[in-house]
Amino acid sequence: MLLEKLGEEKVILDPRLTKDRRRDTWVMSILDELQGNPPDSPRCVVRPVSTEDVVHVVNACRETRTPLIPFGLGSGVCGGVRTFCAAVVLDMSSMNRIRAIDVDDLTVTLEAGVRGVDAEEALGKRGLTLGHYPQSMELSTVGGWVATRSSGQFSTAYGSIEEMVLALEVVLPWGDVFRGRLTPRAAAGPDLKHLFLGSEGSLGVITAVTLSVRWRPQSRALGAFHAPTMETGLEAQRYVIQSGWTPAVMRQYDPTEAQRLFPEHTRGDEALILVVHEGPASMVEAERASCRRLMEEAGCSEAAEEAARKWLEERNKVVGFEPFLKAGLILDTVEVASTWSRISRIYRRVIESLRGVEGLLVASAHSSHCYRSGVNLYFTFAAKPPEPSKRGEVYWECWRRIMEATLDEGGSIVHHHGIGRVRKPWLPHEIGQSGVGLLRALKRALDPFDIMNPEVLIPDD
Amino acid sequence: MLLEKLGEEKVILDPRLTKDRRRDTWVMSILDELQGNPPDSPRCVVRPVSTEDVVHVVNACRETRTPLIPFGLGSGVCGGVRTFCAAVVLDMSSMNRIRAIDVDDLTVTLEAGVRGVDAEEALGKRGLTLGHYPQSMELSTVGGWVATRSSGQFSTAYGSIEEMVLALEVVLPWGDVFRGRLTPRAAAGPDLKHLFLGSEGSLGVITAVTLSVRWRPQSRALGAFHAPTMETGLEAQRYVIQSGWTPAVMRQYDPTEAQRLFPEHTRGDEALILVVHEGPASMVEAERASCRRLMEEAGCSEAAEEAARKWLEERNKVVGFEPFLKAGLILDTVEVASTWSRISRIYRRVIESLRGVEGLLVASAHSSHCYRSGVNLYFTFAAKPPEPSKRGEVYWECWRRIMEATLDEGGSIVHHHGIGRVRKPWLPHEIGQSGVGLLRALKRALDPFDIMNPEVLIPDD
Repeated sequence: MLLEKLGEEKVILDPRLTKDRRRDTWVMSILDELQGNPPDSPRCVVRPVSTEDVVHVVNACRETRTPLIPFGLGSGVCGGVRTFCAAVVLDMSSMNRIRAIDVDDLTVTLEAGVRGVDAEEALGKRGLTLGHYPQSMELSTVGGWVATRSSGQFSTAYGSIEEMVLALEVVLPWGDVFRGRLTPRAAAGPDLKHLFLGSEGSLGVITAVTLSVRWRPQSRALGAFHAPTMETGLEAQRYVIQSGWTPAVMRQYDPTEAQRLFPEHTRGDEALILVVHEGPASMVEAERASCRRLMEEAGCSEAAEEAARKWLEERNKVVGFEPFLKAGLILDTVEVASTWSRISRIYRRVIESLRGVEGLLVASAHSSHCYRSGVNLYFTFAAKPPEPSKRGEVYWECWRRIMEATLDEGGSIVHHHGIGRVRKPWLPHEIGQSGVGLLRALKRALDPFDIMNPEVLIPDD
Repeated sequence: MLLEKLGEEKVILDPRLTKDRRRDTWVMSILDELQGNPPDSPRCVVRPVSTEDVVHVVNACRETRTPLIPFGLGSGVCGGVRTFCAAVVLDMSSMNRIRAIDVDDLTVTLEAGVRGVDAEEALGKRGLTLGHYPQSMELSTVGGWVATRSSGQFSTAYGSIEEMVLALEVVLPWGDVFRGRLTPRAAAGPDLKHLFLGSEGSLGVITAVTLSVRWRPQSRALGAFHAPTMETGLEAQRYVIQSGWTPAVMRQYDPTEAQRLFPEHTRGDEALILVVHEGPASMVEAERASCRRLMEEAGCSEAAEEAARKWLEERNKVVGFEPFLKAGLILDTVEVASTWSRISRIYRRVIESLRGVEGLLVASAHSSHCYRSGVNLYFTFAAKPPEPSKRGEVYWECWRRIMEATLDEGGSIVHHHGIGRVRKPWLPHEIGQSGVGLLRALKRALDPFDIMNPEVLIPDD
């Protein structure tokens, strides 16, 4: 049926090719693959070139009750994509046109499969920028950012993806195309785009995104500070942001990460804070001066801004999991979030709890996204169990400890990577049973046959 | 049943009292009342004092298929509340406790019925502020702000209500209590609070709201500018905000309103722009200096900042509709929004179209909320038809002209007052038939018996 509607060149059946779309970058899927136990390849991979193509695929899948798995560029790290033999994969990277750039309204409309760096490059030619720079910039799509509620590295000033999206185009499970109105704001009932921001493919297929963009900033300044303890540094960040300043970047590495990543700029076993200011020149100057004063009042001392420059230059170099897995290790990064008053207890509890895992080599964290009312933490763990076959078990043990310590201390289990398969067991604790009830009601209302990326996000009944 | 569960003091049956809760401040309801044709009083008014009380009421109404109409303080202007004899009114103003103020995390948790000025006063004692100042501050509740997607006068810097809400407590139509997690951000699936932001009572009852608040600003500065034409002024505002500045307030009155409200500060038939800067002292100084320079580069010239001071002092004096109605007039204010490139055409088209209405006395506008990608417009119309009995007809004729001209030019029919009954006929044009389909799917999923504030917001099938 799909072949007839779409033609041969858009429907890939060759298993040597379909296997490239059977998983995202979730470490457990990679481990399974390395251990000779990969996910089953999908029935086929469809590469649409238009919204109409997507409508055909959604209708065909609904009519035949075939599971449909949207796929961007596969940079997700939570198991949001993991195929099985009955499924059709919708490879959105083939919908990669820039539909419009508007320099008067500062908007860009991108098809969902446009890669981050390609969007940024096209905007750059007009003097514009997204203001959204996830580490996966070269490996991820605009549609993926929306589907997972992505945050970029400069979110403290520029906001996360939900603060940039003006309108979405979404193919609904019943085949209609929802096109949000292009407006800076409206009070026209519930803002329907939020159904799809974070939906991870489970409620519809995002086919295009209109974002509010900005002129490239006039000025940039850097800063770096030593924090005697994690607590001192977190309090200093709180002081800066609650005083009314929003540096584009404010990140804090714990002593372990500071020593590992910035050995030449770290003092003893202190934490390290990096700051980037961006904006009109006079604002950058005012913010930089105030930030320095506030940091010092809060007990931090200036470090070499070279550390921030190094971070800026190297921030998108992603080291893959494979070399570590091949060396018999198991590892992952896990971001959580919380209000300020709980964050240092979460940090201590998680690190302490991870240290109890057999074969643990690394347990560390940094913060990377600040808000008036709280901050995130980005944990890294690595372990080498006595037997490589135990890595799966150790992996889930580490996750369990991070999730439980975070929840026990009142934190949120996720900041910006999404739920996928890895966090699904803890989602009921995050949103409560009534939240799960709401989510299931949405799923039944929008996708009653459960064909849209099944198994992901929504807790099983 | 309600009497048994809740006790007499919470259930008002006396028609002399229930009639006070039969409408909001929609001008058509007031006109009907003045003409001796008021909405029917509800069956009863319930005044809950706890979330548990609300659960009882929701369950009783669901079990008996009784329409339930949540009521805040009745300041809505779109007909979101208009009772009929079968309905139960849930008067949320009796749930008015401040549950918690947290000066470390800068959060406040308020019951839905807390009045705006009361919340602000309690925060003020701790040196804090909401940053949310709708004109209805003395007449509206926090729950009402959420239910209608309110914007405050300082939204250009501080955001609208959706940017302040960290978590909601909502009694769902099936009696569960949804409590959102208190976190600065999460990527835990679709952000469920957005189902209720703007839901106008149609999807559940908001019982408590946790907001992110801020310290009162260190500094404030004022500015005012003459704009030779509306277009020049709108372009100047665009220039300021797209340059990376976000004054807390930036408003522009067209020549008619400038002359009416600020006769002593207006030059000839020019438009008038008022600006308020707030924040850390050095940022205010930098912003004020840049703003002045940018405004002048864009063709505006400085006016007496006294105009901005006058606005600040008088901004919450609301003149009621009654005196005008009693004088035989019909009038209303209507806010719409659009991207920058379309806004001046919308302004011209609406004003021109209104002038064609029989008996028209006033057609004017101001802008009051700026975004990188657009701005709102706040129209005022007043007419005196040859016969008072024609006022309803003229009213709908004015609304039709504003809505149609806005839609024709690609604008959004609403910025921050909501849909209610008055905009319901045009909502399908705003969100499209597929948007209506989504909204109906939500309504069926959450409120299958259609008991939650029926007739409002959601277009009839």
